[in-house]
Amino acid sequence: MKISAIITLKKDVLDPQGKVIQQALDGMGFKNVDEVRQGKYFEIDVKENDPKKAQEIVEEMCKKLLANLVIENYKIIGTQ
Amino acid sequence: MKISAIITLKKDVLDPQGKVIQQALDGMGFKNVDEVRQGKYFEIDVKENDPKKAQEIVEEMCKKLLANLVIENYKIIGTQ
Repeated sequence: MKISAIITLKKDVLDPQGKVIQQALDGMGFKNVDEVRQGKYFEIDVKENDPKKAQEIVEEMCKKLLANLVIENYKIIGTQ
Repeated sequence: MKISAIITLKKDVLDPQGKVIQQALDGMGFKNVDEVRQGKYFEIDVKENDPKKAQEIVEEMCKKLLANLVIENYKIIGTQ
């Protein structure tokens, strides 16, 4: 079962990468952008058919490896 | 209006980064993982109140800058 996870920087953490993307977009003519924030996306195929259990496994992965909980939040999305 | 975009590698494109994450997870005891694929996530705050128009703007950004359409797919998600 495929579970997706999105890792984003917490609201108060500066995102210089997003800032650069915003400037690049600005230079290309997209003038009406207030903010860009970049995050990471993981699609994890777990050998588990119960959606709830699969999500719990991925949540544990986020806590232990994928996300740095000091500065990042994670969000689990079900199958896509 | 905040619009999110997810950029993923196309199905047939190798994802060595995802492979390394899978191996790391395996080493940490998560043995039941079939595949991990990593992608990028963008949260873009556009000065546009019409959801449809905002999504169109972000789609254009994906085509022109954020995604490499030769090897990547993009998916626009509405407000979150």
